[in-house]
Amino acid sequence: MLLPRSAMAEVHQPPQIRVVMMPKDTNARGHIFGGVILSYLDLAAAEHAREIAPHEYVTKLLREVDFIAPVLVGDTVSYYTETVRLGKTSVTIRVRVEARRGRERQTIKVTEAEVVMVAVDEHGTPTAIVPR
Amino acid sequence: MLLPRSAMAEVHQPPQIRVVMMPKDTNARGHIFGGVILSYLDLAAAEHAREIAPHEYVTKLLREVDFIAPVLVGDTVSYYTETVRLGKTSVTIRVRVEARRGRERQTIKVTEAEVVMVAVDEHGTPTAIVPR
Amino acid sequence: MLLPRSAMAEVHQPPQIRVVMMPKDTNARGHIFGGVILSYLDLAAAEHAREIAPHEYVTKLLREVDFIAPVLVGDTVSYYTETVRLGKTSVTIRVRVEARRGRERQTIKVTEAEVVMVAVDEHGTPTAIVPR
Amino acid sequence: MLLPRSAMAEVHQPPQIRVVMMPKDTNARGHIFGGVILSYLDLAAAEHAREIAPHEYVTKLLREVDFIAPVLVGDTVSYYTETVRLGKTSVTIRVRVEARRGRERQTIKVTEAEVVMVAVDEHGTPTAIVPR
Amino acid sequence: MLLPRSAMAEVHQPPQIRVVMMPKDTNARGHIFGGVILSYLDLAAAEHAREIAPHEYVTKLLREVDFIAPVLVGDTVSYYTETVRLGKTSVTIRVRVEARRGRERQTIKVTEAEVVMVAVDEHGTPTAIVPR
Amino acid sequence: MLLPRSAMAEVHQPPQIRVVMMPKDTNARGHIFGGVILSYLDLAAAEHAREIAPHEYVTKLLREVDFIAPVLVGDTVSYYTETVRLGKTSVTIRVRVEARRGRERQTIKVTEAEVVMVAVDEHGTPTAIVPR
Repeated sequence: MLLPRSAMAEVHQPPQIRVVMMPKDTNARGHIFGGVILSYLDLAAAEHAREIAPHEYVTKLLREVDFIAPVLVGDTVSYYTETVRLGKTSVTIRVRVEARRGRERQTIKVTEAEVVMVAVDEHGTPTAIVPR
Repeated sequence: MLLPRSAMAEVHQPPQIRVVMMPKDTNARGHIFGGVILSYLDLAAAEHAREIAPHEYVTKLLREVDFIAPVLVGDTVSYYTETVRLGKTSVTIRVRVEARRGRERQTIKVTEAEVVMVAVDEHGTPTAIVPR
Repeated sequence: MLLPRSAMAEVHQPPQIRVVMMPKDTNARGHIFGGVILSYLDLAAAEHAREIAPHEYVTKLLREVDFIAPVLVGDTVSYYTETVRLGKTSVTIRVRVEARRGRERQTIKVTEAEVVMVAVDEHGTPTAIVPR
Repeated sequence: MLLPRSAMAEVHQPPQIRVVMMPKDTNARGHIFGGVILSYLDLAAAEHAREIAPHEYVTKLLREVDFIAPVLVGDTVSYYTETVRLGKTSVTIRVRVEARRGRERQTIKVTEAEVVMVAVDEHGTPTAIVPR
Repeated sequence: MLLPRSAMAEVHQPPQIRVVMMPKDTNARGHIFGGVILSYLDLAAAEHAREIAPHEYVTKLLREVDFIAPVLVGDTVSYYTETVRLGKTSVTIRVRVEARRGRERQTIKVTEAEVVMVAVDEHGTPTAIVPR
Repeated sequence: MLLPRSAMAEVHQPPQIRVVMMPKDTNARGHIFGGVILSYLDLAAAEHAREIAPHEYVTKLLREVDFIAPVLVGDTVSYYTETVRLGKTSVTIRVRVEARRGRERQTIKVTEAEVVMVAVDEHGTPTAIVPR
């Protein structure tokens, strides 16, 4: 079931993850460390998958994570998700990452990525996704 | 400007903060450590204040944080905020904390608290709040 | 059993918790993040409760945490506790937080709060407190 | 300058990063959190780039991170790197991630990814890579 | 100025550091990670040095850290310090580490070590210690 | 079995641990916190012991950790190990710590220490080391 991009919701849904960046999240350049962004991106995709169907999931693939702009201390970063493709045992999820910055709370696009999550049973074996 | 509780939005707005709880967030009992919840609660209130008016804020007071239910590893915890009272230099914010749990993603009310944030200038002196 | 404040020890007992603040504990303003202070405050109250009687405890309520002064990197922060009220299944504990700062080690009062801890059995059900 | 894969070193060079996984690195399933692996992968690629030429680098793209096997607490995880393509201002780096596990120290392939790092000057503008 | 051990205070002074151990502090064996204990031990020695004389200090030497008993999650660990030898630019400090454990709060000796701290000026050069 | 120092490998073996230092690893002086270095040093020694013989190990003793130079944010720190003495149930390991720094990747000796690791069985009792 491949969803054309135009058919996907443009509505601004609640983010799966939204967090405020702290000094402990910085790298040696003083920007937010990419690993921190990737960590939340992974969690956001898993959360999206759990909403689709009540399974356990493991991350199978991260595809084309394109870092567009750095994230700064004090930014509030939101992770929005949408289904790109729903397969038999896996779901491909697009995650858009946006930062709200400074006193004016301007919105900055940070990155966008596709994540493939696989539904697994209690032995870690892929299992058929049965949407709610 | 004191807002009667009935007048406050029942609409389910996007949360100010939403995060997934990890094993590193646990206490010795295996539940999520209260300090972790309080940390995000503080950040959510500050974020709400920044939406009201473009100032820097410091946390002045935490009032009656009532822990209703424990939070577990794997829970997704959302922090919803609303204005309780807008003063000259301070704003009182109610934060509701909810967890989504397990495969069925049931919603559990975790805690509710009031936080007083004070707008400050670059010297840390309280300054008049000028809403957007 | 409500203890009048004047009857409580003015003697400077050992702190329940004492820690040195590090850069990883800061917020976007460069001060120590309130969530860090609240985390240790919670642990100090639990420690006090365990000294009173050998039970497991959960945090029920944080009452009026009033932030008086910011805490800085390098400060050594002490959490002193005293019993305010000993109930059947709960104990109310006052926590005073003080920072020692700089080369002169001057003492700065940071915050004071009341925490209600509830004794629980292995099922998490409130249980009668039997003091040592 | 595109290097054919066969031409790349099969020699087991020192890893750019090698770390032991701890309980604080786990996710809700008890495996090592993917975000932790991605964080070190990013650092390993940056380290490789710095060895090629003395610039500052930012992560531009993560391409096809394929998670082959879970990582467990106590595993020692090594991040090996090699140059895939050296462009004018960017370098594409392949990172292989291997875990050594258990008393027998068996080697398990964890993931492999390509990372594009861009050399930047002090303003964050892409700058020509001048190899050592 | 070498102080004979017998002359040193047996009085139970307040600890320089006292903290509660959490799951995030564990190693792969489920005990508290030695690195966590060593981190607080270092901070306790620095704190002791600052009490003696108002300088900045760097850790020069850790001597014979003997791990006697493991530390467990939920233990409250106290770091007591005493001066062993006060030199011209350095001070040798003995740190005793004790854990309080379980409902009975029994005291367990964890480790003991000697740490040499050197007073430094703003350039990091050793400077004469002038006690308060 | 005491190995004379001259007999030990001068060959630059792969490090047991190699990591990049981040702002979250700093102390109040802005240098990398000694506790961070000690933590990785402990892990490197344990890793070395596991290579010698397939046992579980606990850290028994840290001997003479001499801090020669501070470590800075952005440094890549390598932990090299060698066997100093192999006893019946314990092994003494020398750990050399080196930092690679700045654009020129110069190598700086940070510290050197001896660590005694004891092989233990599932009850934590010392057990005879049987090398591979």
